[in-house]
Amino acid sequence: MSKIETRIARAVSKVIFRHNMIEENDRILVAVSGGKDSLTLLHDLKKRQRGFPVPYTILAYHLETDFCGCCAGSRLKSLFEQWEVPYRIDGIAVRQNLKPGQELNCFSCSTSRRIELLRFARQHGFNKIALGHHQDDIIETTLLNLFYKGEFSSMLPVITYDKEPQVKIIRPLALVREEQIVEFSRQKNFNGVVCTCPYGRLSKRKKMKGIIRLLSRDNPLVRYNILASVEGKKDRKRRRF
Amino acid sequence: MSKIETRIARAVSKVIFRHNMIEENDRILVAVSGGKDSLTLLHDLKKRQRGFPVPYTILAYHLETDFCGCCAGSRLKSLFEQWEVPYRIDGIAVRQNLKPGQELNCFSCSTSRRIELLRFARQHGFNKIALGHHQDDIIETTLLNLFYKGEFSSMLPVITYDKEPQVKIIRPLALVREEQIVEFSRQKNFNGVVCTCPYGRLSKRKKMKGIIRLLSRDNPLVRYNILASVEGKKDRKRRRF
Repeated sequence: MSKIETRIARAVSKVIFRHNMIEENDRILVAVSGGKDSLTLLHDLKKRQRGFPVPYTILAYHLETDFCGCCAGSRLKSLFEQWEVPYRIDGIAVRQNLKPGQELNCFSCSTSRRIELLRFARQHGFNKIALGHHQDDIIETTLLNLFYKGEFSSMLPVITYDKEPQVKIIRPLALVREEQIVEFSRQKNFNGVVCTCPYGRLSKRKKMKGIIRLLSRDNPLVRYNILASVEGKKDRKRRRF
Repeated sequence: MSKIETRIARAVSKVIFRHNMIEENDRILVAVSGGKDSLTLLHDLKKRQRGFPVPYTILAYHLETDFCGCCAGSRLKSLFEQWEVPYRIDGIAVRQNLKPGQELNCFSCSTSRRIELLRFARQHGFNKIALGHHQDDIIETTLLNLFYKGEFSSMLPVITYDKEPQVKIIRPLALVREEQIVEFSRQKNFNGVVCTCPYGRLSKRKKMKGIIRLLSRDNPLVRYNILASVEGKKDRKRRRF
């Protein structure tokens, strides 16, 4: 196990145990877009299974959209088989399902996917859905919501939707930094699998990254302070989300 | 009345009526540091008195510190007399009152002043203390608290301290932009009165200003979104603090 893999595994352990994320006989649906984040998540959850205190099962679930020309599906399939992970690849008609006048964007696409994930989990008896959002996603989302939505909110490590109380959304990478995932995915050559969304408009998120980088140069605690504010914890000792 | 004075007066009216800031026979202690913000506030509250629906009294209160060499006191005195505003100038031993090992900084100085203001208000029967914080101060403080204190909090237009329930802190400039105050104070030549604090270290606040300026270039709503998040209001129509 490489140094970076160990580091990531430790950060995942921390968040799993702190939030009691994985319980006995959990059936976890791992949402795999094919990007570096979800593949790192899947890799960790698969490896972790063997030595974990309680048994749990995972299913790698990939939703192929109707607008992406590169079709990561076949490449993902061989990766899942290589890792010996049970998987399922379904199609989702994101573009086709748009209502008249509705624009195809990150918001409508991710909402469609989320609805589909929840539907699949409910129908196939999964009680958890694992998403690949990492620490930088959470920090950036806090700022994006503040600056552009006018609300103080973020992505929490564990949430349950009111409409789907039997399915928990978990984010085991909540403590993992994006740069760690980048390093790990380079090492594992995940980038060959990744298929960049042709509609991706990340300019605002990039701006948030720039702001955090700028502030962190003088004060590395800025990242942890933002996370602490999300959890409403003031004491320094527990600042690490 | 100049254009900028009218604009400021309108913004102050809005916040006063929205938050019911001034009530019949209020005795308002106006904290005047001698800077552009507090002088603009004092000027407005004095002018407003004549046509206001209910009577209220004001006292301009200046606390002269023991570390500032320039002593704005005498210049302020002549300004208060020129404006026909009742005033009082007291000394405050900020430096001398420091506990051993305690550093003189913006935080310790403003805490000392706040305690002194509250004490004076209580002893002399003032039920409101008016502070000159403006919209930019509020926005910047939200970000400073998020980035450096690890909490989501800000300066609200009206607050009461638990320990002093009979005295309300009001911020009538909460809707006034700093650039409006700068323009007005230039017109009125307040800058001649202002005495810059020799210990002022505003680098973090300047950074916040830079961030807001940068983001506002592409989306002018960013300022209002931050304010809306502080008030916890989501609907667009009421986004204006």
